[in-house]
Amino acid sequence: MIVDSAIYRKGRRAETPGDLSDALAQCRASSDDAFIWVGMSEPTAEEFDQVTSEFGLHPLAVEDSLKAHQRPKMEVYTGSLFTVVRPLTYDDARARIEASELMVFIGESFVVTVRHGSSRIPAQVRGRLEHDPKVLGRGPVAVLYALLDAVVDAYLDIASELQVDLEELEEKVFAPTGGAETGVAGVIYSFKRQVLEFRRATGPLSEPLARLVAGTVPYLSHETKPFFRVVADHLARANEAGDGLDRLLSDILAAHLTQVGVRQNDDMRKISAWAAMAAVPTLIAGIYGMNFVHMPELRQIWGYPAVLALMVTAVTYLYFLFKRRGWL
Amino acid sequence: MIVDSAIYRKGRRAETPGDLSDALAQCRASSDDAFIWVGMSEPTAEEFDQVTSEFGLHPLAVEDSLKAHQRPKMEVYTGSLFTVVRPLTYDDARARIEASELMVFIGESFVVTVRHGSSRIPAQVRGRLEHDPKVLGRGPVAVLYALLDAVVDAYLDIASELQVDLEELEEKVFAPTGGAETGVAGVIYSFKRQVLEFRRATGPLSEPLARLVAGTVPYLSHETKPFFRVVADHLARANEAGDGLDRLLSDILAAHLTQVGVRQNDDMRKISAWAAMAAVPTLIAGIYGMNFVHMPELRQIWGYPAVLALMVTAVTYLYFLFKRRGWL
Amino acid sequence: MIVDSAIYRKGRRAETPGDLSDALAQCRASSDDAFIWVGMSEPTAEEFDQVTSEFGLHPLAVEDSLKAHQRPKMEVYTGSLFTVVRPLTYDDARARIEASELMVFIGESFVVTVRHGSSRIPAQVRGRLEHDPKVLGRGPVAVLYALLDAVVDAYLDIASELQVDLEELEEKVFAPTGGAETGVAGVIYSFKRQVLEFRRATGPLSEPLARLVAGTVPYLSHETKPFFRVVADHLARANEAGDGLDRLLSDILAAHLTQVGVRQNDDMRKISAWAAMAAVPTLIAGIYGMNFVHMPELRQIWGYPAVLALMVTAVTYLYFLFKRRGWL
Amino acid sequence: MIVDSAIYRKGRRAETPGDLSDALAQCRASSDDAFIWVGMSEPTAEEFDQVTSEFGLHPLAVEDSLKAHQRPKMEVYTGSLFTVVRPLTYDDARARIEASELMVFIGESFVVTVRHGSSRIPAQVRGRLEHDPKVLGRGPVAVLYALLDAVVDAYLDIASELQVDLEELEEKVFAPTGGAETGVAGVIYSFKRQVLEFRRATGPLSEPLARLVAGTVPYLSHETKPFFRVVADHLARANEAGDGLDRLLSDILAAHLTQVGVRQNDDMRKISAWAAMAAVPTLIAGIYGMNFVHMPELRQIWGYPAVLALMVTAVTYLYFLFKRRGWL
Amino acid sequence: MIVDSAIYRKGRRAETPGDLSDALAQCRASSDDAFIWVGMSEPTAEEFDQVTSEFGLHPLAVEDSLKAHQRPKMEVYTGSLFTVVRPLTYDDARARIEASELMVFIGESFVVTVRHGSSRIPAQVRGRLEHDPKVLGRGPVAVLYALLDAVVDAYLDIASELQVDLEELEEKVFAPTGGAETGVAGVIYSFKRQVLEFRRATGPLSEPLARLVAGTVPYLSHETKPFFRVVADHLARANEAGDGLDRLLSDILAAHLTQVGVRQNDDMRKISAWAAMAAVPTLIAGIYGMNFVHMPELRQIWGYPAVLALMVTAVTYLYFLFKRRGWL
Repeated sequence: MIVDSAIYRKGRRAETPGDLSDALAQCRASSDDAFIWVGMSEPTAEEFDQVTSEFGLHPLAVEDSLKAHQRPKMEVYTGSLFTVVRPLTYDDARARIEASELMVFIGESFVVTVRHGSSRIPAQVRGRLEHDPKVLGRGPVAVLYALLDAVVDAYLDIASELQVDLEELEEKVFAPTGGAETGVAGVIYSFKRQVLEFRRATGPLSEPLARLVAGTVPYLSHETKPFFRVVADHLARANEAGDGLDRLLSDILAAHLTQVGVRQNDDMRKISAWAAMAAVPTLIAGIYGMNFVHMPELRQIWGYPAVLALMVTAVTYLYFLFKRRGWL
Repeated sequence: MIVDSAIYRKGRRAETPGDLSDALAQCRASSDDAFIWVGMSEPTAEEFDQVTSEFGLHPLAVEDSLKAHQRPKMEVYTGSLFTVVRPLTYDDARARIEASELMVFIGESFVVTVRHGSSRIPAQVRGRLEHDPKVLGRGPVAVLYALLDAVVDAYLDIASELQVDLEELEEKVFAPTGGAETGVAGVIYSFKRQVLEFRRATGPLSEPLARLVAGTVPYLSHETKPFFRVVADHLARANEAGDGLDRLLSDILAAHLTQVGVRQNDDMRKISAWAAMAAVPTLIAGIYGMNFVHMPELRQIWGYPAVLALMVTAVTYLYFLFKRRGWL
Repeated sequence: MIVDSAIYRKGRRAETPGDLSDALAQCRASSDDAFIWVGMSEPTAEEFDQVTSEFGLHPLAVEDSLKAHQRPKMEVYTGSLFTVVRPLTYDDARARIEASELMVFIGESFVVTVRHGSSRIPAQVRGRLEHDPKVLGRGPVAVLYALLDAVVDAYLDIASELQVDLEELEEKVFAPTGGAETGVAGVIYSFKRQVLEFRRATGPLSEPLARLVAGTVPYLSHETKPFFRVVADHLARANEAGDGLDRLLSDILAAHLTQVGVRQNDDMRKISAWAAMAAVPTLIAGIYGMNFVHMPELRQIWGYPAVLALMVTAVTYLYFLFKRRGWL
Repeated sequence: MIVDSAIYRKGRRAETPGDLSDALAQCRASSDDAFIWVGMSEPTAEEFDQVTSEFGLHPLAVEDSLKAHQRPKMEVYTGSLFTVVRPLTYDDARARIEASELMVFIGESFVVTVRHGSSRIPAQVRGRLEHDPKVLGRGPVAVLYALLDAVVDAYLDIASELQVDLEELEEKVFAPTGGAETGVAGVIYSFKRQVLEFRRATGPLSEPLARLVAGTVPYLSHETKPFFRVVADHLARANEAGDGLDRLLSDILAAHLTQVGVRQNDDMRKISAWAAMAAVPTLIAGIYGMNFVHMPELRQIWGYPAVLALMVTAVTYLYFLFKRRGWL
Repeated sequence: MIVDSAIYRKGRRAETPGDLSDALAQCRASSDDAFIWVGMSEPTAEEFDQVTSEFGLHPLAVEDSLKAHQRPKMEVYTGSLFTVVRPLTYDDARARIEASELMVFIGESFVVTVRHGSSRIPAQVRGRLEHDPKVLGRGPVAVLYALLDAVVDAYLDIASELQVDLEELEEKVFAPTGGAETGVAGVIYSFKRQVLEFRRATGPLSEPLARLVAGTVPYLSHETKPFFRVVADHLARANEAGDGLDRLLSDILAAHLTQVGVRQNDDMRKISAWAAMAAVPTLIAGIYGMNFVHMPELRQIWGYPAVLALMVTAVTYLYFLFKRRGWL
């Protein structure tokens, strides 16, 4: 489905193109840096066909654009530069990262963006650029820059959110009273999966950005390179954050395992202490439950209270002994 | 054993070659891009001998083709390009990856495919290509492309199936009631072995594909390079999936270990709570089982019911105490 | 906020510049290597604006300078060399590394330093350089050197402090009586986080320093290269220290986990030994508590003391048995 | 000690050389590709001296040849190419890899092989080559090839044997009834040591073989390169196998650890179930052992059998309860 | 402090230099490859000053030489080649590696060695070289070679000693009766620290040696290169040994952890078996301790011995049951 389609002249939105082929020829002929931007969402092969032929997109890139589940990458074809990125959104409630996909073709006087999934980045970026004619006036490459910038900035935001979640997890795991709940290992594992998803989006994007910074792809002007450098720099931070999260989660899992062991030992000591405090009076009671004829204590009037007192004393003594040793 | 053998002209199956030597000379002389495709399955040295000499295959590559257990690789010999790949199939019932082997020789006007194991890919690809004269018309390199494409697509399918299995495993491990069964560690380990087998097939194939994309091997035309780029891209996804599975399985094993510890602690607490609830009335019974002459309670008519009531009260109190602390 | 601003001539502090633009023109025209050094702290966009335009700083670098949370990096812009470093301080009491940020622009006859956070390094370095005209006389690049040197030396100091903390942790973990406290895993984890923070500052700085050593950035003179080599060397040591700490902390956590297991086993044995020592006399008492009419021992005058003696003997025997086996 | 020494002409064993110096001069002068092959076993410095001087071997290589414990490597000296490899044998009974060492000098018209340890590869290869004049006729480089081929093929055989051992270990560890024996961790560790020994032999050999394949060392002819490529390919498989074994052993150890935890929990539950089944009748017996004067049940003729029945019922109930919950 | 200082002519010790400056000029002028070797130990800045100025050492290298805690490295300065190595000694009794430091300047006709710590290598090497005029006659570079060779050979010796210690540790950990002592984890950790110290000395030295082998530093002659190749080879072995030790120690720690778990399970079973053997007769005694009026057994003359026999039978039965199941 074509979501939006417009001709931009001097960085300002002009008319909606009627026939793409005519519009393209006209843009290329014009002297005011005009270009067409076609935005599509999960197009069918039929919908895509026209765009493909008008703009001369490469069949392989078109095939990639029709199917989701592509890796982030950049490919140079005759007549167009094809880029795939994975915009991410973070569903805080479910602590789950959602990946969508965005394919961008830029060429002489045209941009085609194809979106798979629910990412609002193409629409947001178009809106923002339409209020910034200075940037938009630089042409298709500025659109690519703005899209990559928006996607990578979203990565940094998600990295921050994950960081906050990590801190909550840390508090939960290392709280003096907690840390041995059944679900914690599952939470950490699920967190690791999200981080893996995160890195799956950020990691492979490094190589395309390095090529944009190095300027080894077409359609770049000299003055746009520093902008891509900034994006590359942000991506490096996102990658670093993903890497750090991954390591810390491994560490937290290892620490949690140790804590479970310590907790178990603590519980075992506590349980044993109470068991000992029951065993001693039981033993005493057992002794005075023996049926010997000649047990002088049994006849004494003070026998019973004395034994009860002995029991209480023994239990009290054990209680403080264990208390002092930290078993209780 | 020669499974199938045919001459292709302009991308269409023509006659079955009689004498290979004559047919090859004729193909090379013809102006219609004709080529011979010989498909073999676990050939004996004798069966292979004729093909070898007619097509001028290198003895070392022939030796490799006769024995299975080769690594995926690509080697350039005078007169032919030799490629080894490991097609995989996934036996879902046994959760086991089966590897077969496929050797491909391409040269001027000929393709020889040698299959070890039960992979149906050579037959499927031949069938598919015979319905696609446009592709097949590009000659031997198109056959190589189609085979690699089919093999790598199968990798992606298997990666998806493994992903599904992983999710089932996750549910099993992190289910609130489960997760401490004896067999889980064995299942995870066996899964890791399958992933290793998977990576053993996908990993070493990167280098041959990189060479095909870079165009540093013979028999490639300029227009076939983008196609190999797509295959390389899919392989990169397969490799990434294998890598991700491997990490997640390590994480799942670590999480499972932690869970076993937590489960053990939970069980220990539950057991101890019940033990305490038995120990207290046992102690009380012991006390009133003592044989002191002067134990006034023993003579009271309400003594026995009172003690029973005390026991019930103590047990009830402990029950709620442990309940509140989450030990039961 | 502009913290300090001065013109330096022949390595000595001269007047405070009135108008930056005039001062810069004058410095560039002068023959005495004069340069302006403007030091700012968390400047607002407005405060920064003037500096930006006078010195011709690149808008992207300026944007980076206004926001904290940059990665250490070095970028070459027309007219200036932009460097970001992360000075660290170590709060020993809270065992926490605090990172601030320092951006340095050097260009022809000017230095601009921008500080985020509480690092006192820019002020200290300015003070030190003002007493060392020989170094300061080399111009802006000497300021960059001096700042990097101070930052990296602080890394080495922090590495030493972390080393000391590690040794304290080792003593705590491997003390014969200790090692199973609840908090240790949390302490190790928190230590790992600090080391990660440390490496986040030191790691990405390697690349800028390698470029300074290789001399592939502008504003370097041949004789300043060896100085950057020293800084790079110190940074390599800091990186190595961070790496070593990270590994040792992983090892310590693994060793701690093992120790928790050993400790638990020791405790279990000790508890069991005491339980056995209570169970045996309880059993004996149970036997003589049976109500058989014909139990000859019960009638003997020595029966009761003999059984008591038997109990004591059994317990004593068990005590020494367990002692000898190391269970007590 | 010189084990064997012969002159080979046209790939066939000719006379045993009398004086090495004369023989070498004669071989070099002859037109029939004659060369001398001297095979030594743990030579003393004296024994080696003559060979050294006659063949002009480099003192450093000679020093290396006299001492065992060299790393696999290849060094080019004036007049000779020096190669060190570590042939391995596998003692299946003791599950132990034995490493020996083999040094090979090749030069113009001579081969010197020096063996440390009990490897039979030099003798086997000489025997095999003497029956294969076609290969041997290619001269010294063919001997080097044949030796490397034999050594690397032995690596592959050992890798297969280790694979079989791994499968036995897997069965042992993951058997439903087993897996918690005391010795298993030790067996896995010892296996890892063998794999390390294996990799110590195979790993460093990659670099010499890469140089042989690239043809950057002297004494190679163009037609021998593909042969070394085969050896390099086999070595890559051996390296891959070693790597895979190493990972799987780490995984098996981790899985084993988890299983020990699961087993412990199972045992704990089983033990606790039986303990509960003893505690309940003990408590009942305790209650009816109390000495209250007014316990009406005690006087009933059905009291005793009723209580016994109660005990049996309680135990039976608990038994089935625990059975149903999987604790027994 | 200057430890030793001499002029060497034709590889033989000649006079002790009076004035360094004159001596140096004279050496340089002489035709007999004369050179001065000054050996210092922890020199003060003052002591070093004279050497610095006479030999034209670079101030940064001098600064490095005055402070210990340098990383192994090699730097080329105008007029001298500066090398830092970390000689190691192994204190077997305390199982601790001691690192000292050695700085070497070589230049035209001079060598300056600076030692920090107690390493006896400079003195030993000087002594050895003074008896080997052939080597010493090659001048300053021969001294550098001899020092590096001695340092690296000491690494190999230490690697052997660590290997022996590892084997002792293995025996201790995997002994059937041992392996669960409290201290073992601490011993393994401390061993890992030593290995880290070892690798800190050997690892960074690879790069300087690679440069010496490649011949990209001054003062090397063509014939000295093979010697440095030998040293580089030995260093590679030391690095490999360090790497192997590190891995094996990680493995041993993991195996030890598993063993602790197995041991704990074994102990738990044994304890439980004994507890069961006490619980059964206690239960029986409890039953016959009940006060029912109608318990016919109590009146039988054989009642008491029969119950005792029942108890003994039950315990004996359980004993053999547990024995057969391997719990005892």
